[in-house]
Amino acid sequence: MKILITGGAGFIGSHLCDYLIKENNHVVVVDNLSLGKEENIKHLLNNKNFKFYKQEILDNKGMREIFTKEKFDIVFHLAANSDIAKSRLDPSVDFNNTFMTTYTVLNLMKEFNVKKLVFASTSAIYGETTTVLNENYGPLFPVSLYGAAKLASEGFITAFGENYGIQVWITRFPNVIGERATHGVILDFIKKLKANPKELTVLGNGEQNKPYIYVKDLVEAIIYVWTHSNEKINCYNIGVETRTKVKDIARMTIKEMNLDATIKYSGGDRGWIGDVPEFKYDLTKIHALGWKAKFTSDEAVLKSVKYILQQLEERRNKK
Amino acid sequence: MKILITGGAGFIGSHLCDYLIKENNHVVVVDNLSLGKEENIKHLLNNKNFKFYKQEILDNKGMREIFTKEKFDIVFHLAANSDIAKSRLDPSVDFNNTFMTTYTVLNLMKEFNVKKLVFASTSAIYGETTTVLNENYGPLFPVSLYGAAKLASEGFITAFGENYGIQVWITRFPNVIGERATHGVILDFIKKLKANPKELTVLGNGEQNKPYIYVKDLVEAIIYVWTHSNEKINCYNIGVETRTKVKDIARMTIKEMNLDATIKYSGGDRGWIGDVPEFKYDLTKIHALGWKAKFTSDEAVLKSVKYILQQLEERRNKK
Repeated sequence: MKILITGGAGFIGSHLCDYLIKENNHVVVVDNLSLGKEENIKHLLNNKNFKFYKQEILDNKGMREIFTKEKFDIVFHLAANSDIAKSRLDPSVDFNNTFMTTYTVLNLMKEFNVKKLVFASTSAIYGETTTVLNENYGPLFPVSLYGAAKLASEGFITAFGENYGIQVWITRFPNVIGERATHGVILDFIKKLKANPKELTVLGNGEQNKPYIYVKDLVEAIIYVWTHSNEKINCYNIGVETRTKVKDIARMTIKEMNLDATIKYSGGDRGWIGDVPEFKYDLTKIHALGWKAKFTSDEAVLKSVKYILQQLEERRNKK
Repeated sequence: MKILITGGAGFIGSHLCDYLIKENNHVVVVDNLSLGKEENIKHLLNNKNFKFYKQEILDNKGMREIFTKEKFDIVFHLAANSDIAKSRLDPSVDFNNTFMTTYTVLNLMKEFNVKKLVFASTSAIYGETTTVLNENYGPLFPVSLYGAAKLASEGFITAFGENYGIQVWITRFPNVIGERATHGVILDFIKKLKANPKELTVLGNGEQNKPYIYVKDLVEAIIYVWTHSNEKINCYNIGVETRTKVKDIARMTIKEMNLDATIKYSGGDRGWIGDVPEFKYDLTKIHALGWKAKFTSDEAVLKSVKYILQQLEERRNKK
């Protein structure tokens, strides 16, 4: 099977490449390397079943050439802005990188008759609510531009699906952490503690409470949903049952670094405007399909802290 | 109050102008007259509280000049493609006219510090379902590109609202009919019967069953929602409790025209791909707010048939 992965050199995309290559698929990656890194896929570059194009999705001419040449059976569309906090400063970031990439990919799929799409959506489409979120939750009033752009993408995806016969798998991710992450709370804390091992300033009151999933769990879930559901529109929350508070991430990070830092809270109930300080997934649907995460939220956090510290260590040793 | 109405020369927009002018507001209309008509607002052109700009919303320079000059207190954003059936042929119609107009207006509101937005949304965002639709219904999987573009608009509206302090009123319309309508099932039937008074071909099996609201009822509801709700995000279905089947619209039209035409059905459960053949609103929320439609769906249909026939008669007499 010939698979296009947009954003395939990114944090999640590159793990997806690893998995799909292992399963003997032909994988083509399109990535502009704005957030993705060649380093994430360099171990695949010599594989005859793998091809990488450094390419802007919004450059239609370049994309049409790739679609003409490669004849894809399916698209995994992951390319997006992933730095939710930053997009408030400039709405065009999520408009272009998160939404317009989707709209462009949909038009290419229509033109080149590609009939299957797996889409990386997000809990951010649900907006801010204390309700336990199942796939049918409404109303959908996203508070971040990232969530808006993903919801807009979902809307066009289901309408293109209906009008042009494209089967779709919409997988809604929670916070994803682990190897190759480019940003996020853990990386922030480690950076801050490297700069000042005595004190760690945490945005908000530390009570922000979310499920964190380990990236390899997530990638297995995406594949599982795609291979085990077969409706016209397949929509699944992907997550873990447990959650981790930001103040506990702070504590775990300090402990792993063998420090004795004081935690200071900037105050307020959230890290930034557009942040959703607390959410909980109802995972009944994906559990009924037969998939469950291997790692709890705390375990995922700990694995990520250890990984980032080890990576920093290796980099220092190389110098 | 200085009010911008985008699409203000259109079917619904022009009725809104009438209402808001009557209530002593200053009304500025921006319309490119692609679907709107100068005829719809010509009775307002000499009113000192009314101003009309023939202007493309997607022409940012022109729009910035208008925003600079006019200093709006609130925007009623109605500009959109309204011909759902046609947009399947070219997804860019709803992308540009329904979604990008919204995104552009939002960016202008952000730049020029306009803090209130009333938005014309639609039942089409709910997609196809037999569930009675309240405002919290999910999942939102629109089947038309029009529905996709309106859902995408809602998403960006709530995110802009959160990030840039804009208060929003989202009003979700059902099928709207009455004076100044530019297309739709009633106009189609009358045209067909003028061409062939012996036989009327109806798309689908005629069992399509939807609530039709009289345009003046709708406009009163929009104003009512705006003046009687005051949350950060106010979202209301606007509708009538009754519905009308397409086959009954056909019968009423034939009867009003004093014809004896045979009805032929093209077959299938819907008029076109992307059509939602049946839906029903839960109106508990807007009824609790204190608003109810004056006319039933059947009454609205009959009023519209009579109006269009009278209009055709007047035009013939003028010649």
